[in-house]
Amino acid sequence: MAEAKTAPDKATVKQMADAIRVLAMDGVEKANSGHPGMPMGMADVATVLFSKFLKFDASRPDWADRDRFILSAGHGSMLIYALLHLTGYKAATAEQLSNFRQWGSKTAGHPEYGHMPGVETTTGPLGQGLANSVGFAMAERHLAAKYGDDLVDHRTWVIAGDGCLMEGVSQEAIALAGRYGLNKLTVLWDDNAITIDGAVALSDATDQKARFKAAGWAVKAIDGHDTKAIKSALQWATKQDKPTLIACRTKIGRGAATMEGSHKTHGAALGAAEIAATRLGLAWDHEPFVIPEPVEKAWRKVGKRGGKDRKAWEARLAASSQALEFTRAMAGDLPERAFDALNAGIAQLVVDQPAQATRQSSGAALETLFGAVPEMIGGSADLTGSNNTFVKGTPIFDAPGYEGRYVNWGIREFGMAAAMTGMALHGGIIPYGGTFMVFSDYSRPAIRMAALMGVRVIHVLTHDSIGLGEDGPTHQPVEHLAALRAIPNLLVFRPADTVEAFECWQLALQHKTTPSAMALSRQKTAAVRTTASDDNLSARGAYELKTASGEARVTLFATGTEVPLALKAAATLEGEGTPTRVVSVPCFELFEQQDAAYQASVIGRGTVRVAVEAAIQQGWERFIGEDGAFVGMTGFGASAPAETLYREFGITADAVVAAVKARL
Amino acid sequence: MAEAKTAPDKATVKQMADAIRVLAMDGVEKANSGHPGMPMGMADVATVLFSKFLKFDASRPDWADRDRFILSAGHGSMLIYALLHLTGYKAATAEQLSNFRQWGSKTAGHPEYGHMPGVETTTGPLGQGLANSVGFAMAERHLAAKYGDDLVDHRTWVIAGDGCLMEGVSQEAIALAGRYGLNKLTVLWDDNAITIDGAVALSDATDQKARFKAAGWAVKAIDGHDTKAIKSALQWATKQDKPTLIACRTKIGRGAATMEGSHKTHGAALGAAEIAATRLGLAWDHEPFVIPEPVEKAWRKVGKRGGKDRKAWEARLAASSQALEFTRAMAGDLPERAFDALNAGIAQLVVDQPAQATRQSSGAALETLFGAVPEMIGGSADLTGSNNTFVKGTPIFDAPGYEGRYVNWGIREFGMAAAMTGMALHGGIIPYGGTFMVFSDYSRPAIRMAALMGVRVIHVLTHDSIGLGEDGPTHQPVEHLAALRAIPNLLVFRPADTVEAFECWQLALQHKTTPSAMALSRQKTAAVRTTASDDNLSARGAYELKTASGEARVTLFATGTEVPLALKAAATLEGEGTPTRVVSVPCFELFEQQDAAYQASVIGRGTVRVAVEAAIQQGWERFIGEDGAFVGMTGFGASAPAETLYREFGITADAVVAAVKARL
Repeated sequence: MAEAKTAPDKATVKQMADAIRVLAMDGVEKANSGHPGMPMGMADVATVLFSKFLKFDASRPDWADRDRFILSAGHGSMLIYALLHLTGYKAATAEQLSNFRQWGSKTAGHPEYGHMPGVETTTGPLGQGLANSVGFAMAERHLAAKYGDDLVDHRTWVIAGDGCLMEGVSQEAIALAGRYGLNKLTVLWDDNAITIDGAVALSDATDQKARFKAAGWAVKAIDGHDTKAIKSALQWATKQDKPTLIACRTKIGRGAATMEGSHKTHGAALGAAEIAATRLGLAWDHEPFVIPEPVEKAWRKVGKRGGKDRKAWEARLAASSQALEFTRAMAGDLPERAFDALNAGIAQLVVDQPAQATRQSSGAALETLFGAVPEMIGGSADLTGSNNTFVKGTPIFDAPGYEGRYVNWGIREFGMAAAMTGMALHGGIIPYGGTFMVFSDYSRPAIRMAALMGVRVIHVLTHDSIGLGEDGPTHQPVEHLAALRAIPNLLVFRPADTVEAFECWQLALQHKTTPSAMALSRQKTAAVRTTASDDNLSARGAYELKTASGEARVTLFATGTEVPLALKAAATLEGEGTPTRVVSVPCFELFEQQDAAYQASVIGRGTVRVAVEAAIQQGWERFIGEDGAFVGMTGFGASAPAETLYREFGITADAVVAAVKARL
Repeated sequence: MAEAKTAPDKATVKQMADAIRVLAMDGVEKANSGHPGMPMGMADVATVLFSKFLKFDASRPDWADRDRFILSAGHGSMLIYALLHLTGYKAATAEQLSNFRQWGSKTAGHPEYGHMPGVETTTGPLGQGLANSVGFAMAERHLAAKYGDDLVDHRTWVIAGDGCLMEGVSQEAIALAGRYGLNKLTVLWDDNAITIDGAVALSDATDQKARFKAAGWAVKAIDGHDTKAIKSALQWATKQDKPTLIACRTKIGRGAATMEGSHKTHGAALGAAEIAATRLGLAWDHEPFVIPEPVEKAWRKVGKRGGKDRKAWEARLAASSQALEFTRAMAGDLPERAFDALNAGIAQLVVDQPAQATRQSSGAALETLFGAVPEMIGGSADLTGSNNTFVKGTPIFDAPGYEGRYVNWGIREFGMAAAMTGMALHGGIIPYGGTFMVFSDYSRPAIRMAALMGVRVIHVLTHDSIGLGEDGPTHQPVEHLAALRAIPNLLVFRPADTVEAFECWQLALQHKTTPSAMALSRQKTAAVRTTASDDNLSARGAYELKTASGEARVTLFATGTEVPLALKAAATLEGEGTPTRVVSVPCFELFEQQDAAYQASVIGRGTVRVAVEAAIQQGWERFIGEDGAFVGMTGFGASAPAETLYREFGITADAVVAAVKARL
């Protein structure tokens, strides 16, 4: 690394980078756990990026027009913690760094959104940070189109490792970035040729540079330890009309006395002897977590670099006629009258009682919301017509204008989901996107991360059971409701009709720190909500849809397209003199949030309890207890028309009645 | 398409291809559901492939040395059904074709393994057939190394669409194929520039040819309707030293009178008028599902093309000293003495009682099995040391020899899982592969497909709870046990100690038509099985590990690393005079297969029931009923040392005791 010419009391660029290296190795050593190799390897690149290019102000991590820095190689978390500490982020104290990976600290093993200001997204599961970043860059372009460059004009910088590039989701992400010409997105690839098991060459021979070019990126390769080269490459990146990849050839564990370049520096503490020798080699004669004054001063100056820009931006915002709207949207607050049209729609629906597929109901809900909530951006993974995600007349998101509010995500469920999360994290956008429910398996890793971070993204999952019919078991979710309900902090909605679909959409939007999944039918289903209500009944997760004619002897639970079937069974039972109530359960998770008295009143212990859902039983014991019955699936579906499947798999009103009678 | 010069009573190549087109459009029309566009578009390519290149014998779909044909674009299922019918596969009758997508037929909406002979793998979820095919090609090379070219020497041909190539898993697959130089793998890309939502260009601008080249493939582009060009490209493919991509520029719905080239032919019946006009245009004057004699004759000849090769191969097999071993392995039967070393190991373990992480226990089980079951092939998605999947001394799978039995899969969980499935489907191999349990989210789509198909692949999922500690919630599975247990026909094992780990490995191998997932701990745990047993106790899924001192008042259920904790709680309760039994539950699914009496005896209604597992509760109501208690997780984990996390999240023996006392 070339030494900058500086006065003796001024820190060199190398010393600034070494400060990162030492913090990383000391933090990991103290925790006796972590990954020093990547931060040490990428310290030079990060130093130049933060010193000269990244637009940020350490005193205001929430500045809306800051550049976004995404550490997709999240295991190298000490890199970002060190940078935040050195540049003077208030929360990133030396104490926090020395409590790396400990209970209650903000310095989690992998960077976690919401723990430490300056961490823009939670990373660790490889490839996803990169895919998030595509959403960040899309959000930036869209909001720039909406609010103008004066308010929105920033870049997204990503550090990604070989693992990120080997994960399939990276292909989905880079293809999207290439297709949409996201030229303010730059990926700094830590090209250190090392993975956990050894050399990258053990398992990969991909020409990554050619691959990115094939996806429409501009590509440059540099020595990631040559400050001048780094600087000129970053400069170059800001001038391109395409997304940019900078392949930074680095040595993992750069600076480590004997272990530099070895995969042994990847995921474990270096050990006292190596650390002592490394200190010597770096001429770094300071205690752990102590930064010498000149170095600290230089870094703090970097942290303040963006202050002037930030203030100028604040002045522009204050002067803007869009200030209120911009601030509202960025804060994630809904417009005041967001639900007027939706509520009017519900009032009409209880009268009209349309029999339609709940995916159509969802589409109808979107019609009422899309104009009222201008920060909503829709899309589908190439199933627009099937998912009913497109609101007529919506312009398509595309270069060069980016003002469109509908995204053609292509056949990329995982990439779509991760990019949606990036959009939501950026702020100013509420994204929703559609695919078939069975393909939530593909997007699941990103759904989980959105739930962990607590961001509002809405997954529109149509074709939610064997009711999709002929496409067969490859396309028929049977375990997916249970599997999605298993994810903490995810609201899984399965509306029974159009009224419930409207209610569920309202709830999904109202829950600001929770992602939602909408399970929606392909097939037509009857309206079940036929009387007006002042309340959003779905808000309690489960509610009595039909009361018993006398003291209830039977409780039937159902969701979605099986609710009409429960109602039919109830009618039969009532006709035979058995008082039967029907409970609709549009959302397990919201039901769990109700008080015990309400829960008990809904569950109705002492009655014969039967649940019906065209899916597996797992999780339903919560409602039916140990002696109740479940009418549903016990294995995979089959290829045949929907009615045939319901009959053959025994998911019928008759089966419900029979299950009740066996228990009366 | 160039017409072959033939006598008037001989079918032309065009007529042969048109037979596919007409069967596809008629089959879809009859079902009023399906995808005619792709079969019509790829009919010419498929005709040349089957007529001239694919090594097969329609009378013997199970011929072990046949070429494998994988329809990765599975929605075009009528293409394969038409081909199987035309070439004379016995099961592929005209009646089956006319019952396309109906209950009980072998002609499911998407091709399903095990339904129709000639379908090598179930496809439909895009990208996965391509990823399976990499496993097929790897299996072929490995078995050729093992048994010689005389017994194993065949190619794998794949038809993939734009959807397959847009899915991220395709990148993992092609990178693997490129890295391992699988030159007997050829992908025929249906480059029709159309997806469901419209033009591919709407969402993609990738230069696919450059992308495949970057992954180490040889690439050629042709007009997919030019017979000569197709033939010469297929010829070329067989001569390359790399995997090959042939980009076949086609028109979707080729031959359709007015809809050729339109995305409207993709996923719906063409309609009576279009079909009539298309018949006219193709000069095809025959009833639906009726093939004129010259065309039928020509196709039947194709179906018999491989007969001579097949017989020669059978003669070579009969003469081979390896015939028995080859036949056994291909049939999926285990060697006779497969478990001798494993059982000896168990006998010693109840004496030694090692306290070790169950991932180490799993590694120890593998040490006893790897030599005894030579068809096992291991690997890891770049976590070899952490997953304990490597048996010392195993040669690494690699070009040019391919005799190695350990695969460096790279950071590609999904690609690994799908390729493992391909290996198992090929036959002759029992694959297992490791990753962290949390990343089963990445491989989940392939795990599901293996379960649907019923193939024996074993997923080694280590770091199975918050017990992994400092890496934090991104890496800590909390919902994954429930989510995996939700998948039908998947055995989810969570052994408590080394004896159970040995037993679970035995069970995973013994279940020939079921994939398995092994949940294994990072952290050390005590031995709980300390007395010898003649039976594999884990085989019943749940069993009484510790009996109560008197009539049981309490039953404690636990799995994995929480079993010692349940035993400790039981000791406390017993010490206080409360007879307490402990049930270990290594496998929910096997428990469900037991008879009602056994299940009742294990569950112990009437006792106070408490379950403990460092995961969410979903599914445990089966054991604890409505009034039992669950000690586990209610949300995501955190980053801290394991002991701290167990304490802070309240998963302790004390908590179990307290839960019991609250109920006594």
